[in-house]
Amino acid sequence: MTAPIGHRRWAIAEGYIPSRSTGPEPQMTSHETASILNAGDADANVTITAFFADREPIGPFRVVVPARRTLHQRFNELEDPEPIPRDTDYSSVIESDVPIVVQHTRLDSRQPANALLSTIAFAER
Amino acid sequence: MTAPIGHRRWAIAEGYIPSRSTGPEPQMTSHETASILNAGDADANVTITAFFADREPIGPFRVVVPARRTLHQRFNELEDPEPIPRDTDYSSVIESDVPIVVQHTRLDSRQPANALLSTIAFAER
Amino acid sequence: MTAPIGHRRWAIAEGYIPSRSTGPEPQMTSHETASILNAGDADANVTITAFFADREPIGPFRVVVPARRTLHQRFNELEDPEPIPRDTDYSSVIESDVPIVVQHTRLDSRQPANALLSTIAFAER
Amino acid sequence: MTAPIGHRRWAIAEGYIPSRSTGPEPQMTSHETASILNAGDADANVTITAFFADREPIGPFRVVVPARRTLHQRFNELEDPEPIPRDTDYSSVIESDVPIVVQHTRLDSRQPANALLSTIAFAER
Repeated sequence: MTAPIGHRRWAIAEGYIPSRSTGPEPQMTSHETASILNAGDADANVTITAFFADREPIGPFRVVVPARRTLHQRFNELEDPEPIPRDTDYSSVIESDVPIVVQHTRLDSRQPANALLSTIAFAER
Repeated sequence: MTAPIGHRRWAIAEGYIPSRSTGPEPQMTSHETASILNAGDADANVTITAFFADREPIGPFRVVVPARRTLHQRFNELEDPEPIPRDTDYSSVIESDVPIVVQHTRLDSRQPANALLSTIAFAER
Repeated sequence: MTAPIGHRRWAIAEGYIPSRSTGPEPQMTSHETASILNAGDADANVTITAFFADREPIGPFRVVVPARRTLHQRFNELEDPEPIPRDTDYSSVIESDVPIVVQHTRLDSRQPANALLSTIAFAER
Repeated sequence: MTAPIGHRRWAIAEGYIPSRSTGPEPQMTSHETASILNAGDADANVTITAFFADREPIGPFRVVVPARRTLHQRFNELEDPEPIPRDTDYSSVIESDVPIVVQHTRLDSRQPANALLSTIAFAER
């Protein structure tokens, strides 16, 4: 339906998974998401690497975004090779074998009123 | 007044229309919007395609943004060929026959205190 | 101190000035801001044009950002040639004779808990 | 693990450090952050310059982001050569000797419900 759009290499400099939440699970659980769109006709093999302030990066986490599909990947659900620690500053680099588009969103429900943030990720052109 | 600014192809990786809202309608209804600016002197014929996690894309939805006008299109008001389901992750690709500028905004009023997010969409250059 | 950074032509597709606010004035007044950085050594003569859904654009509004200064311009304080109407969708194009950087922010204080959004504006390269 | 990604010169046009906060310290202290990712194999020597509406810029503030590390730098913790004043509009330019990725985030906790904003910074390509 649509030719590929996007780039193969993205970065999200901001990252922080709060350990506390209020409100019904799982919609209102504090989380960070990388929304990954693969508008092309080939499956996207995606790797995510997480960077920290005071230790070596962890990863790669591997996910597949099928052709003409989107994946809203919650960072708190990445578990292999190891979970991303909570209440810890991190960044991420997201790489794909075909063009994708990446957007970063956080729902912070530590207080009764949610806060939301979102931004397009940085694309290496 | 102003020559065309923008690109013909945009993507918004993040998308989610909450089914619940609080507060007065329609200003405080939870919604996602693609704000589309056509600063040029020719009407923009725009198509929107929605992508999902586990089904084929739907669309194209067709809208016209007249010359020197802006359209703040709410995704929950797109109905032809079919509505975008609520409480469902999606992404969108927005294509135009003339240059446009696209920005993505969500008002989430599921809780009494609103949350807002916004980001410039991804432009294929 | 720093050579010029930025572009001469920017667009903000999203715009909406709420007519209602809660909380102390003026910090908590609902507002939309174009933050304009002029990091160069020459003053920036900037024009802002506002676009609407169903009428011709208005402007140009004229502001000067001196060399090595920033201006956080609230759209609700633009009055010449005419104010931007409240509770109305709009977009804006921001043009300068020297490179500038533009970021868009909204504080929405219609409800007791504020909501904030911000995004880098679109730069015509 | 990953080759360098990013650019050497970034700008954040929006800046404002609220002087008031509610909620537990330091997580809920109102703050502005520049999240800086250095995904490369050489340390990044980074300078931050702050611009104001009505005075000369201050800085450079100097920080190091080690190879394969991220630094979420709070602007309210920059103190040398002098602190950034509170409740004051500012902008910043961030320069590095190796490629980095910069994202801007603000937590505003002046009211009991937090507000969050975030955007990728502007990269000089």
